[in-house]
Amino acid sequence: MKVSVRNKLKGTVEDIKVGQVMAEVFVKVGDQRIVSVITKDALDDLDIKVGDEVVALIKSTSVAIGK
Amino acid sequence: MKVSVRNKLKGTVEDIKVGQVMAEVFVKVGDQRIVSVITKDALDDLDIKVGDEVVALIKSTSVAIGK
Amino acid sequence: MKVSVRNKLKGTVEDIKVGQVMAEVFVKVGDQRIVSVITKDALDDLDIKVGDEVVALIKSTSVAIGK
Amino acid sequence: MKVSVRNKLKGTVEDIKVGQVMAEVFVKVGDQRIVSVITKDALDDLDIKVGDEVVALIKSTSVAIGK
Amino acid sequence: MKVSVRNKLKGTVEDIKVGQVMAEVFVKVGDQRIVSVITKDALDDLDIKVGDEVVALIKSTSVAIGK
Amino acid sequence: MKVSVRNKLKGTVEDIKVGQVMAEVFVKVGDQRIVSVITKDALDDLDIKVGDEVVALIKSTSVAIGK
Repeated sequence: MKVSVRNKLKGTVEDIKVGQVMAEVFVKVGDQRIVSVITKDALDDLDIKVGDEVVALIKSTSVAIGK
Repeated sequence: MKVSVRNKLKGTVEDIKVGQVMAEVFVKVGDQRIVSVITKDALDDLDIKVGDEVVALIKSTSVAIGK
Repeated sequence: MKVSVRNKLKGTVEDIKVGQVMAEVFVKVGDQRIVSVITKDALDDLDIKVGDEVVALIKSTSVAIGK
Repeated sequence: MKVSVRNKLKGTVEDIKVGQVMAEVFVKVGDQRIVSVITKDALDDLDIKVGDEVVALIKSTSVAIGK
Repeated sequence: MKVSVRNKLKGTVEDIKVGQVMAEVFVKVGDQRIVSVITKDALDDLDIKVGDEVVALIKSTSVAIGK
Repeated sequence: MKVSVRNKLKGTVEDIKVGQVMAEVFVKVGDQRIVSVITKDALDDLDIKVGDEVVALIKSTSVAIGK
């Protein structure tokens, strides 16, 4: 399935923090770090673990610019 | 001002597409490309031009994961 | 690729409205209608046309509730 | 009050998961399921319970497309 | 209908900018200004005009903090 | 750093609710109240406390309108 989401950043899961409802996933992308917040259900469903190769998916309307 | 936004990706503006209300800004981040959609007003207010050094700002709740 | 996005609604593209930067895609899902706004680039990249079978992808943090 | 939000999906609350700050609400919409993440405060304020008839509200800019 | 959206800011429409697909609505809230981007369809559907009393609706997960 | 985010509402932190992954920050803005959900990490990183002067940052594409 191709997705309309314009931002697909490949990286490796460095760390994971799990709460009752939400989970925080830290992904190393090149020399920068991406933080994603998803539901704990999604974390379990995709069986995301430290060391996994993943893609950070970000809709372009969610990206602001600083200058 | 420090911001709570967890994702701050430094890069260079590669291209800009402008509409009546919205604008699309393409930012080279390492060897990957980030696409941001902001208002035309914001583009003009920050005077964003190709070649500018900028930061792509993304709230962690807007980042999904693919595996 | 599996995605952490919790909402994946299958449907058929009923109509498309295209602007300079953004595009609006109307998707029939069961007896209800979903409206998606994506970039024109994404519309062209996925070659989305009326009649296509697609999936509306929505992060759970973007869904509010009315009662 | 009418709202600019284009996506208003009627359904029934099937399940609820509550954390300290956030809550996850599962809504049956036709033969599909919508997952919403709202604050626990909102859950309590609207007194949302399993079996309630609700509307899932989704801004069109939050809807991506897969094909 | 009550909504789970935690931020409901009452104000008056000061200005409107309309594109092919999107529209920008400027709302005076107290002594500050809120900018909303909605679809042109939504603008027409709600018949939003300068001078209208409206409510700016913002999900709490969309609000970042600067300090 | 200037940001493309169009909504920057100045206010004072009135209350904070902390979970394992997320945190809820209540900000008094004029005579209205803004609720922000950020990660606990961000809360700690910015050392946000009740009484702090802060800015609520909201992308215009995240603002819907009710009328």
